[in-house]
Amino acid sequence: MSKKHLKVAVIGGGSSYTPEIVEGFIKKYDEMPIRELWLVDIEEGRHKLAIVGELAKRMVEKAGVPIEVKLTLNRREAIAGADFVTTQMRVGLLEARRRDEHIPISHGVIGQETTGPGGMFKALRTVPVILDICKDIEELAPDAWMLNFTNPAGIVTEAVQKHSKVKTVGLCNSPINFQKFLAKEYGVSESDVLPEFVGINHLHWVTAAYVNGEDKLQEMIGGGKDYSATNVTKFDWDADFLRSLGALPTYYLRYFYMTDAMLADMKESFAKNGTRAEVVSRVETELFELYKDVNLNEKPKQLEQRGGAYYSEAAVNLMHSLYTDKRDIQTLNVRNGNIIGFLPEDASIEVNCVVTAQGPIPLPLQRVPEQIKGLMHAVKTYESLTIEAAVSGDRGLALQALVHHPLVPSVAVAKLLLEEMLEANKDYLPNFFKNETL
Amino acid sequence: MSKKHLKVAVIGGGSSYTPEIVEGFIKKYDEMPIRELWLVDIEEGRHKLAIVGELAKRMVEKAGVPIEVKLTLNRREAIAGADFVTTQMRVGLLEARRRDEHIPISHGVIGQETTGPGGMFKALRTVPVILDICKDIEELAPDAWMLNFTNPAGIVTEAVQKHSKVKTVGLCNSPINFQKFLAKEYGVSESDVLPEFVGINHLHWVTAAYVNGEDKLQEMIGGGKDYSATNVTKFDWDADFLRSLGALPTYYLRYFYMTDAMLADMKESFAKNGTRAEVVSRVETELFELYKDVNLNEKPKQLEQRGGAYYSEAAVNLMHSLYTDKRDIQTLNVRNGNIIGFLPEDASIEVNCVVTAQGPIPLPLQRVPEQIKGLMHAVKTYESLTIEAAVSGDRGLALQALVHHPLVPSVAVAKLLLEEMLEANKDYLPNFFKNETL
Amino acid sequence: MSKKHLKVAVIGGGSSYTPEIVEGFIKKYDEMPIRELWLVDIEEGRHKLAIVGELAKRMVEKAGVPIEVKLTLNRREAIAGADFVTTQMRVGLLEARRRDEHIPISHGVIGQETTGPGGMFKALRTVPVILDICKDIEELAPDAWMLNFTNPAGIVTEAVQKHSKVKTVGLCNSPINFQKFLAKEYGVSESDVLPEFVGINHLHWVTAAYVNGEDKLQEMIGGGKDYSATNVTKFDWDADFLRSLGALPTYYLRYFYMTDAMLADMKESFAKNGTRAEVVSRVETELFELYKDVNLNEKPKQLEQRGGAYYSEAAVNLMHSLYTDKRDIQTLNVRNGNIIGFLPEDASIEVNCVVTAQGPIPLPLQRVPEQIKGLMHAVKTYESLTIEAAVSGDRGLALQALVHHPLVPSVAVAKLLLEEMLEANKDYLPNFFKNETL
Amino acid sequence: MSKKHLKVAVIGGGSSYTPEIVEGFIKKYDEMPIRELWLVDIEEGRHKLAIVGELAKRMVEKAGVPIEVKLTLNRREAIAGADFVTTQMRVGLLEARRRDEHIPISHGVIGQETTGPGGMFKALRTVPVILDICKDIEELAPDAWMLNFTNPAGIVTEAVQKHSKVKTVGLCNSPINFQKFLAKEYGVSESDVLPEFVGINHLHWVTAAYVNGEDKLQEMIGGGKDYSATNVTKFDWDADFLRSLGALPTYYLRYFYMTDAMLADMKESFAKNGTRAEVVSRVETELFELYKDVNLNEKPKQLEQRGGAYYSEAAVNLMHSLYTDKRDIQTLNVRNGNIIGFLPEDASIEVNCVVTAQGPIPLPLQRVPEQIKGLMHAVKTYESLTIEAAVSGDRGLALQALVHHPLVPSVAVAKLLLEEMLEANKDYLPNFFKNETL
Repeated sequence: MSKKHLKVAVIGGGSSYTPEIVEGFIKKYDEMPIRELWLVDIEEGRHKLAIVGELAKRMVEKAGVPIEVKLTLNRREAIAGADFVTTQMRVGLLEARRRDEHIPISHGVIGQETTGPGGMFKALRTVPVILDICKDIEELAPDAWMLNFTNPAGIVTEAVQKHSKVKTVGLCNSPINFQKFLAKEYGVSESDVLPEFVGINHLHWVTAAYVNGEDKLQEMIGGGKDYSATNVTKFDWDADFLRSLGALPTYYLRYFYMTDAMLADMKESFAKNGTRAEVVSRVETELFELYKDVNLNEKPKQLEQRGGAYYSEAAVNLMHSLYTDKRDIQTLNVRNGNIIGFLPEDASIEVNCVVTAQGPIPLPLQRVPEQIKGLMHAVKTYESLTIEAAVSGDRGLALQALVHHPLVPSVAVAKLLLEEMLEANKDYLPNFFKNETL
Repeated sequence: MSKKHLKVAVIGGGSSYTPEIVEGFIKKYDEMPIRELWLVDIEEGRHKLAIVGELAKRMVEKAGVPIEVKLTLNRREAIAGADFVTTQMRVGLLEARRRDEHIPISHGVIGQETTGPGGMFKALRTVPVILDICKDIEELAPDAWMLNFTNPAGIVTEAVQKHSKVKTVGLCNSPINFQKFLAKEYGVSESDVLPEFVGINHLHWVTAAYVNGEDKLQEMIGGGKDYSATNVTKFDWDADFLRSLGALPTYYLRYFYMTDAMLADMKESFAKNGTRAEVVSRVETELFELYKDVNLNEKPKQLEQRGGAYYSEAAVNLMHSLYTDKRDIQTLNVRNGNIIGFLPEDASIEVNCVVTAQGPIPLPLQRVPEQIKGLMHAVKTYESLTIEAAVSGDRGLALQALVHHPLVPSVAVAKLLLEEMLEANKDYLPNFFKNETL
Repeated sequence: MSKKHLKVAVIGGGSSYTPEIVEGFIKKYDEMPIRELWLVDIEEGRHKLAIVGELAKRMVEKAGVPIEVKLTLNRREAIAGADFVTTQMRVGLLEARRRDEHIPISHGVIGQETTGPGGMFKALRTVPVILDICKDIEELAPDAWMLNFTNPAGIVTEAVQKHSKVKTVGLCNSPINFQKFLAKEYGVSESDVLPEFVGINHLHWVTAAYVNGEDKLQEMIGGGKDYSATNVTKFDWDADFLRSLGALPTYYLRYFYMTDAMLADMKESFAKNGTRAEVVSRVETELFELYKDVNLNEKPKQLEQRGGAYYSEAAVNLMHSLYTDKRDIQTLNVRNGNIIGFLPEDASIEVNCVVTAQGPIPLPLQRVPEQIKGLMHAVKTYESLTIEAAVSGDRGLALQALVHHPLVPSVAVAKLLLEEMLEANKDYLPNFFKNETL
Repeated sequence: MSKKHLKVAVIGGGSSYTPEIVEGFIKKYDEMPIRELWLVDIEEGRHKLAIVGELAKRMVEKAGVPIEVKLTLNRREAIAGADFVTTQMRVGLLEARRRDEHIPISHGVIGQETTGPGGMFKALRTVPVILDICKDIEELAPDAWMLNFTNPAGIVTEAVQKHSKVKTVGLCNSPINFQKFLAKEYGVSESDVLPEFVGINHLHWVTAAYVNGEDKLQEMIGGGKDYSATNVTKFDWDADFLRSLGALPTYYLRYFYMTDAMLADMKESFAKNGTRAEVVSRVETELFELYKDVNLNEKPKQLEQRGGAYYSEAAVNLMHSLYTDKRDIQTLNVRNGNIIGFLPEDASIEVNCVVTAQGPIPLPLQRVPEQIKGLMHAVKTYESLTIEAAVSGDRGLALQALVHHPLVPSVAVAKLLLEEMLEANKDYLPNFFKNETL
């Protein structure tokens, strides 16, 4: 790509995360000359879009780069001719997240917005909307790359790859965070480390941790070195377990490996303060108060505590490598192919990739520990079934997805949750209520 | 095989099941001329062997067939030159089964002797003993077929296939029972039905049920027709679940699909009457009282209630087909090969096979429902890890097997159970206590 | 299938082979009550159909079975409601065969009607006609089984499986002949032998030869025992070659393993007497002279020398097993699935199958010698490309198929042959001359 | 690797190619500080080693870099503690090459030192010697990387990967030449192009040719742009063939796609001037005359015409990327894994790889044209069988390898060639004459 005038459309541009990605574009401007940055949102987000959009303009102005920031509620206008489209949105807003978390926990099941019943319903709401956006991209910007960091990112990415022609990559900040953690632990630069990730989005294991070419994984396991994130309660891993596992599980795996403790903790919090939806709601309100300040012309420090740290750095790095054919290694959500032999070729997986101008090419894995295969297979199958349920509105498929999710204790509970959550999400699930609307 | 003088060795010949297999041999004598039937047991089983052995002799005498019944505690003598060796044994006797059931349930986990923590410990005790028997077979009867119906049959069969050169097949009575149930439901003969089984031992699904060439599965699902067994509590399957599953799960799958209800039921029974170990203990005592009767010269009716109905019919059918190159279809535990693509080639699976003189050849499956793959993969991985743990005495492997079993709720519980159960089984697990014995 | 009134349609019913299949139906009448036998042919075959049809009627009458023989040029009438449809036809008649053989040999390339350039052109002519027949079957007899023994049988069968919904099986007489040969060599009945065939139609290897359960293959190789057929020149196999191959190649493999000698022999015959097309032409004339005899009311002995010996026995056996759910082992051309791992799942292969009422299920292979894989892969790829070329009329695909066939010495020769043979077959290849007809 | 004092051992250091690799080391000295360069050869090469070794010393001196050049006939001394070992040798010297070319052509078969009968015998002579070297490396430099550019490079690399623990990569100059050709054609720098190679050593196809991120392959095919090399006669590719192939074949594929023309050309040359062995012999003599000149202190231009242009650049690039964990894309001969699904996992293939400090990781292929699979499979199988024949001395394996090579016309010719070539190479094939030496 020798193109010198890039256009980016940010779907869900009114998000509190936007200042981060704007900062990223500013920093990389010399190597990746974005000239048009379209922030697009829906009617319900008009107010937030205005606030964050003005901040973006002030940031660009301060930096002195010729990026034109455009605010719009007209998605098609934003997408037309774009080189990159990013998606960061929440169908049903925070209120939907609250339900995704509250309903399961009230029935004694982990309530979490990226996996389990909560994750499934977030996916059921989001997939049809994303596929609708894809139709616009197919028509108006067929060569654009869509960078998806809407959760559950693995499901959403796989849905796009299966049901549209749009070129897409899914992104999570967890790998880049581990890489930074590793570099910091060993006092080297980020380019000197190379962890190997095995798995799918929010369900991966680190199976090697090269620092200047030497694998430090055993040392890390032995020394109890672990990374975590602010949005998942940090219980310590059992040392014998890690040693015999021979890998470091991502912090999200606590939901699976410490189900009892996580559930107890979640129940306790729920009784006291509600769930993470409430925390995020408060943080968001505070952030937008800050953003309103007309003297603010850079990303405020407080944003880093929001949970999605370095998401935007990951996104900007990816765009940059696609644009410059950089051929560096990044950890991304891509089509499996033959990388993980027991999963379908068209499943999305989260692994190291070489990013070329033609897109990311996943790298063969050096080792997949036997013991993790069943869990990975079960969750991936739940994901693929969820996509088919979202597209078809088939309740039987949704039931099968839920029953076979490892965090759901029985067919009976699955059925109860399914019915209650379908009803609660009725407004966002037209596919599931097609016949009733007649 | 045109051989006319067959020798069979029954390891664990003092079992209460023996009259069944003796009856089977008598019925098929004309087509499969067994001339020597060696019942072999260990010192602790001497008394039971004597009782059941005398009954066997009376049965043969009454039938007027020239089968010579030999009783021995010398395993090598029984195996030498045998054409078939069957194994039906319980390392640690019923007392061990009691512990396999009691310890998990006392920690709130399903306690069951063929899967979960209980199944794992039964396997850890049994595998080394079976492999020891295999060494004798390799030396003294290298052409013999070993028919294994010692539980957990899938694990034991896979262990033999991986760690010895003995030709082996694993057997369960569940498939033959379903076949009989299906034939009875439709009022046809057993040879007119052909169900398709997909899965592994005690974790299979029926995905087609041909009756005179027509698939009656949907009809059965719709009509709520289901088969079960006396040893697993019969809760009804949810109709929506079965319909969307598009398959009939074996009754053992209730442990996985109805974990909450099964657990509650098990806890209640445990509090009242103990577990199934106690039931079996009482039944056994009664059976041996019957067997002592010198006037008894046929299999007593009461044996059929013992739980393993038609095990012996299955075993005799298999021997007969191997001996006569019958090439009929039977459901057996065999090496996977490429039948279930996501499992290792050397895993044991339970599927339809054509039985030739060279052994059973598994038949490709017409359909494997997506949703069951993860669960099957997880349990098979637990099984394979259990074998490696049994052979090596590696506690780390045992921990990984247990943690990744879907019925175990967390690493913490897995560790607790592992430690308590290792200690309780110390006498039968020399591999795990090698260093301490110094 | 408990149906008692079966209808069979024989496409190409005017073939000289028809008396054989009629004899087969008569012999099996008690177990497989065919009540309507429709012999259908095209206008050009009207005369032969009349002759052979009358013979068929006399045969049935003599046998005293209630099979109604119907002669028609109306294919749809014959197919409507049929239980079985068989195809035995030659698009372009013997004159086309002559060209398939003559043109290649005149350019120094093996000219053979089932493989190489000749086989490719036979396929290009036949596939569109067969697919047209399949449309009728889809509409008028959707539950019928189509038994294909039109050559090249592997290609034709794969074409039907890929491009129609018709249930089909491909048949060759080579496996049944080997089975008979093996039984005769060892003086046992045919049901006591079980050879294992590995490969694709006309390109298979026998990798085991069980006689009463014992593998006699090495003995056969050592003793120089080999089977052959009248239509392929019989040069002896090199003993060292067979020994190190560890398998018996079918006689068709002489074209590949003895290309130089076969070519020399073919050139010599060609110069003297023309090719096999001329021989067959003479035999056919003689046979139809015999058939005209109104006193003839059984299959004449001379038919057995025709080359396709036991084709009809194979066909009748297959129908019988499908009808009775016999579950016996037959060697058939079926969809690969996972049987031969390196070939596409939808490729047709020729292997042992268990024949149930639902159709043949291919059996996993015990062993595929490494050395034969490349050759098998190359010829199968030529076959699959030929199908796509036949369906699309794409000359590029046809060129690629021909270039990559192991009997074609270069791109230059492939191109020359392609152009000359396309022109010579113009009347039968409308797909390839679509644009010219405007 | 932060190591600052690197040691390299060049096995076959007396080769005429050595000045090239020395030049490469000099150029990259700042980034890859080689301090010891051991040139090792056998007694027969002592004279050439002395000449080329002195030239190497003069080159280093002129460049002013602190590389110590050491000459030795003691292989173990050279290997001990080495970081990199390269192999560039010819077992049996040019006289053996002459036989590899002459004997086949005298029987009407392509005589070529990297494939067919000639390649097979070069491999049979070389593999045991290479594995012997590997034993030294395992003992004396277990962490060293062995870079193999001894032909047939694919076979030799696979042999090392299968039969030793040495970390190895195989190298060919053909890919780097294509890359340079592509860059030159489009007037861009080499880092702006990225061709995709599919296949195995000397049998690859270019299936994409990205120039600044855009695929120019169709344009190249349409425009008749092709690359070739001095050592293979350049006949033009047929345009229709290339178009329908959708890929560019390497020039070595002329032996397979233009067998008739190549053979005719080879026979003609052979009759006139002998084969390439004679040409190379003359070139070598001239080069060593040049090298003797004590005033020469840089690589002479004439070396570039030697045939192996840019071999050393490829080798130095690879070492550099391994040393610096560069993670760039290079085309190398590595273990297949799952990259080419129909080949064994332990086969060597020649594809794009990312080179990390842990070694090259092969990249999944975007597309493998169907038509090339059979040929690739056949040649790879010949290669793997050749390795087993070389290691075991089994004539049956060697016969199977030869018979199944696509350039060998029949079993009869294969046997003839095998016997004559075994006898002619007797001195270098002790494995094949073990029994006779008693």
